[in-house]
Amino acid sequence: MQDEQATPEVQARIQESFERQGLMRHLGAQLTHIGPGRVVITLPARPEVTQQDGYIHAGASSAIADSAGGYAAYTLFPDETAVLTVEYKINLLAPAIGDRIEAIGTVLKPGRTLTICRLEVFAVHDQQRTLVAAGQQTLIRLPQRPTPEDR
Amino acid sequence: MQDEQATPEVQARIQESFERQGLMRHLGAQLTHIGPGRVVITLPARPEVTQQDGYIHAGASSAIADSAGGYAAYTLFPDETAVLTVEYKINLLAPAIGDRIEAIGTVLKPGRTLTICRLEVFAVHDQQRTLVAAGQQTLIRLPQRPTPEDR
Amino acid sequence: MQDEQATPEVQARIQESFERQGLMRHLGAQLTHIGPGRVVITLPARPEVTQQDGYIHAGASSAIADSAGGYAAYTLFPDETAVLTVEYKINLLAPAIGDRIEAIGTVLKPGRTLTICRLEVFAVHDQQRTLVAAGQQTLIRLPQRPTPEDR
Amino acid sequence: MQDEQATPEVQARIQESFERQGLMRHLGAQLTHIGPGRVVITLPARPEVTQQDGYIHAGASSAIADSAGGYAAYTLFPDETAVLTVEYKINLLAPAIGDRIEAIGTVLKPGRTLTICRLEVFAVHDQQRTLVAAGQQTLIRLPQRPTPEDR
Repeated sequence: MQDEQATPEVQARIQESFERQGLMRHLGAQLTHIGPGRVVITLPARPEVTQQDGYIHAGASSAIADSAGGYAAYTLFPDETAVLTVEYKINLLAPAIGDRIEAIGTVLKPGRTLTICRLEVFAVHDQQRTLVAAGQQTLIRLPQRPTPEDR
Repeated sequence: MQDEQATPEVQARIQESFERQGLMRHLGAQLTHIGPGRVVITLPARPEVTQQDGYIHAGASSAIADSAGGYAAYTLFPDETAVLTVEYKINLLAPAIGDRIEAIGTVLKPGRTLTICRLEVFAVHDQQRTLVAAGQQTLIRLPQRPTPEDR
Repeated sequence: MQDEQATPEVQARIQESFERQGLMRHLGAQLTHIGPGRVVITLPARPEVTQQDGYIHAGASSAIADSAGGYAAYTLFPDETAVLTVEYKINLLAPAIGDRIEAIGTVLKPGRTLTICRLEVFAVHDQQRTLVAAGQQTLIRLPQRPTPEDR
Repeated sequence: MQDEQATPEVQARIQESFERQGLMRHLGAQLTHIGPGRVVITLPARPEVTQQDGYIHAGASSAIADSAGGYAAYTLFPDETAVLTVEYKINLLAPAIGDRIEAIGTVLKPGRTLTICRLEVFAVHDQQRTLVAAGQQTLIRLPQRPTPEDR
């Protein structure tokens, strides 16, 4: 079921939100899969996303993992709601070396208020995929766009 | 002691490493304090670092918090060593709204192998500072620059 | 303000809830401070709470830290509400050796729905206190006692 | 491969260490599976392990999850080494209601120094299993039994 697609309406809603994320565009990240409860974001390697040794920065891995998890949760929410990250924890397992990295957010436990996601980041080099980060994330559903008072 | 400066040698070592981080430059982040066991990184708000509602993206907050903690640990390490993030956990406490955000990494427990840091991110708007994220991070000291086999 | 006491009503509410926790009684833990947004739980060292090398088990440290954080949040909630732990993260910083351990839960960010606490565990040996664990916790406020559907 | 058994030598080493954990015995926990990189610990429900509403206390779930992860890592270590928990993060997903809970620790990434485990806790009621907690843990391998200076 990993290739299952979300409905066109959900895909459009996620894509529209993603395009408003200035950071994702600035990093060069792309939404590469939108399934029900599962979203993949891909980031090509380039000098703008590196740490001091030339690998992809943990901050870039985490940023796309956080967005992948947030959108994975959002695929399961009704229209006219919003999603915010409450917290996440991520282990960096190996240096992120490759042509690109792929962050996969998967809903582990959906909920009326809180949703929990599993986060995985793979580095892809030629045909080889290596798990370079793994984490877990808590998200909250809001009845509409967040305001500073909402959390 | 929050304004205490690291030695010039340590400051130069941290600054040199920071300048090799393509991601920090691409985001527009700057090292604004290097003390022994405490480092501050500042990121001005701009459209390139936003999420879908125009606030600073949690991924940007996390990226500078991760770097601030890593460098805080690194200020306490001998020359000819390297530092890698093992993992971190971060709670997003409030939307990051303001002119800039400041991430503060502070060593909570130094160690021969592992060092634990506290992470805080403040949004600064005019003179007002709001805590927008808080976390905790585990770092490992390596005898030299990391290779793919090292972790 | 670390010695400030909660109101008698709040103290009674917390104490009454604590006494219903079979695990705290079974471990031998005691509520030793109830302040507004800050609760301390103390656990004497004894063979029933050890790990394989005779130190206090990380599971025991975590259990009292989790309860201390939960009750710290609960001091700030209205009557007729309940509190549940959403998640926590804890670093074990040093072996827990001593006459007793003290877990301190402190509210870092109160909220209508979610409250974030800092967790600290000290080992106390004679007059000496050593920080042996540090963590961060997310709690949710419920309108009444939880049911299986509530989370 | 979930039922694969560790070698008799490894099983004996894990069992012997587990029996030295006073806390596990005091809680009533039992080792119910020792496979290579995967360990299950089972805890029967009883009043001694409850929280204030009669469910199994998150501290008890976390304690057996922490031990299950530690022993899962330890199955992959050579003799004459020791294992310590560096940190873990756990989400409580649902109230732990049932006849017993089962904590499963699974190695996600083994390493020379650090090993990362996935933690899961299921509540079992009659034949039904519910995921009640999920987490992630970092462990460190030590060359021998830990001393206070080791971490």
